[in-house]
Amino acid sequence: MSLQKHVSLNIDVRGIGESPTLAINERVKLLRSQGQKIYDFGLGQSPFPVPAPVVEALRLHAHEKDYLPVKGLPALKEAVAGFHHQKDNVEASADCVLVGPGSKELMFLLQLVFYGEIIVPTPCWVSYVPQAKILGKRVSLLHTSFEDKWHISADRLAELLEGEQDLYRPRLLVLNYPGNPDGLTYTTNELKEIAKVAKDYELILLSDEIYGQLHHKGGHVSVARFYPEGTIISSGLSKWCGAGGWRLGTFTFPRNLDWIMEAMAAVASETYTSVSAPIQYAAVEAFRGGMAIERYLWHARRILSTLGQKCYRILYDAGVRIHSPEGAFYMFPDFSPFSEEMAKRGIHGSATLCERLLRETGVAMLPGTSFERPCEELTARISYINFAGAKALAASETIPMHQELLPEFIQAQCEETLEATEMLADWLCR
Amino acid sequence: MSLQKHVSLNIDVRGIGESPTLAINERVKLLRSQGQKIYDFGLGQSPFPVPAPVVEALRLHAHEKDYLPVKGLPALKEAVAGFHHQKDNVEASADCVLVGPGSKELMFLLQLVFYGEIIVPTPCWVSYVPQAKILGKRVSLLHTSFEDKWHISADRLAELLEGEQDLYRPRLLVLNYPGNPDGLTYTTNELKEIAKVAKDYELILLSDEIYGQLHHKGGHVSVARFYPEGTIISSGLSKWCGAGGWRLGTFTFPRNLDWIMEAMAAVASETYTSVSAPIQYAAVEAFRGGMAIERYLWHARRILSTLGQKCYRILYDAGVRIHSPEGAFYMFPDFSPFSEEMAKRGIHGSATLCERLLRETGVAMLPGTSFERPCEELTARISYINFAGAKALAASETIPMHQELLPEFIQAQCEETLEATEMLADWLCR
Repeated sequence: MSLQKHVSLNIDVRGIGESPTLAINERVKLLRSQGQKIYDFGLGQSPFPVPAPVVEALRLHAHEKDYLPVKGLPALKEAVAGFHHQKDNVEASADCVLVGPGSKELMFLLQLVFYGEIIVPTPCWVSYVPQAKILGKRVSLLHTSFEDKWHISADRLAELLEGEQDLYRPRLLVLNYPGNPDGLTYTTNELKEIAKVAKDYELILLSDEIYGQLHHKGGHVSVARFYPEGTIISSGLSKWCGAGGWRLGTFTFPRNLDWIMEAMAAVASETYTSVSAPIQYAAVEAFRGGMAIERYLWHARRILSTLGQKCYRILYDAGVRIHSPEGAFYMFPDFSPFSEEMAKRGIHGSATLCERLLRETGVAMLPGTSFERPCEELTARISYINFAGAKALAASETIPMHQELLPEFIQAQCEETLEATEMLADWLCR
Repeated sequence: MSLQKHVSLNIDVRGIGESPTLAINERVKLLRSQGQKIYDFGLGQSPFPVPAPVVEALRLHAHEKDYLPVKGLPALKEAVAGFHHQKDNVEASADCVLVGPGSKELMFLLQLVFYGEIIVPTPCWVSYVPQAKILGKRVSLLHTSFEDKWHISADRLAELLEGEQDLYRPRLLVLNYPGNPDGLTYTTNELKEIAKVAKDYELILLSDEIYGQLHHKGGHVSVARFYPEGTIISSGLSKWCGAGGWRLGTFTFPRNLDWIMEAMAAVASETYTSVSAPIQYAAVEAFRGGMAIERYLWHARRILSTLGQKCYRILYDAGVRIHSPEGAFYMFPDFSPFSEEMAKRGIHGSATLCERLLRETGVAMLPGTSFERPCEELTARISYINFAGAKALAASETIPMHQELLPEFIQAQCEETLEATEMLADWLCR
């Protein structure tokens, strides 16, 4: 955009630029189109295809053309409620489900309608803060540390809440586990303790569980079990169902927070109207689940878990501060042990780190700043998803379920992922 | 919602309720489920199915799972640019196309990013004003009259613009033709004159041409031909392609308004991300067009035109003030000739008129107030779409193209539509 160009733009949207995860995707494509070899650790997209029965359901419903109800297709809302009931052991009612074109859009609507403070622990998902900026609002960031496994503790939360003059003003805390960008999750006990504090202070929880089904051991637990009346569960097709590009997210509310849902639905009716009808019909199949989808998830988890451990080990052995991954397909390494060497190479923060790594090795990852970490902190997100997911799934299905995947499997199926991790380790130790 | 319930909501979203067009749809469903016979003149949805090649394209692309670029699939942007080039004789470039989940969402983003006055002639589409309210903004309404065919004239526009102290402050005028709720359009000459005034005052035009291909004579002309540098064209699959429930809209910008597009895309990347991938692949087929789609459109127009004229004649003969329909599937009758009789029946405005009509006859239509007309004005929108579109299309295809559709055709294919129109006429003359 030329400096001279006359524009009449809302000051809150000037200079926000494109979301970093999408921008890195487009940059990777551009570099590749210029003939460069790029290792894409940038985009947070599932490497796996959409499960076959779900694709087939989309084909069957391709002719559906009617505007659906704003909150969602009744059968889909039933399926989502059933999903949380069965998977998470949470009482959920179909009439307390809101379907949107991605949970990102739903989070935006939530920020738009909620009048109160929104508290987000960091490192956090890339869009909370830009959404607040677009709306001319502010979110309160709560920085966590490597030592705390990038978690907030109940004590820390209580301290924060207790430190306010007005203890019961409207507040909403966002929890995301397994987490983006850290790939870590909370223990049941930690969740119980957080739930207790939340209850004491009448805090609303937005529990972003979009990676729940990608807990590497299949052991996801929802905080809603311990604070059902105050927890909104966020989920969707994008991650566990491999359908990021389909754009379907869900919020599931407790009945006493229906006033948030109704306000969000009213705004939805004046914006996106309803989610694409054929996609909603197909999503019924996904949320209803069944053996084919369970098998798909089981194999996806076995692959991600084995690969995550291998990548973790390479970086750990190279001297990186890093936690053993527990879910999703991310790691959030801390490169501070290399800070002196990096300073000598002119690297003083995560943005330069990622830029130099990309230019010097072709490995693309997102800097800690994209996740609201301080500029000078040497952190970054690795998405270990640059392998052919359909092929890897098919190969995993030929290996008995009681066996672990051998190093040879990962070497054969995820060669580029390992190569990129080793290039990163080598680059650090140069 | 109980009066006592404690809620913490943004004051700008309290009490907005659901969009009237969607609310009437849900009300009609409810009344029907209670066993009532309802004639639905409420919802603005195409009665026709999605053309077969477009449905087939969705089936073929059901497996597409990747996040697409924020602005849209490149092949779709090409197809949209080609569509406007071929259909509207407008130079359009693929890199100036923005694809969104419905043109309603794109309009919302436009209102969010544009810093300036937005001028909307009334009667207008139902969502402009609620969108502004949600955003804490204001749109300027410009009331038109029955005598002016619900149009603004170039003179009236010039007078408005000239009447301001600051002639060149940022302003955007929304034009919608063929229009919702009026089913009328502008002549080429009227558009030329409006374009000249817009150019003189550096006004930006948002030209909502979503019903362009449903001009009853196939003679749609875009104002962009006469003011290309200042016109954004809005289109989408919802109306001419019968795919309202699919949720895909497009904005096509002139290059010098790319700053609006870029800002909207940045917000899109933090909200809906991109439009559902399978839907975008299918939309390529729709916008590329071809013989099958041309035939579909030709038959759709012949049916709508013949039916529209018939309904118009029934109401005109009953004494209603009404214009002969020119496009889309709407009429916006003015019942003021019946105002005295209505006053005796306790009806003093459009909301009561529609409510009483629904209760006493089962005919559902939307009151003029939903389109920002004064409460006491006795106007309403009729959507003459309550017939089986697929069956009517198939029947039309058996009748040679040089023949007109006979009254018997309309009687057989659109019986309920005629019945409802006659019930309305009878009810007025009671």
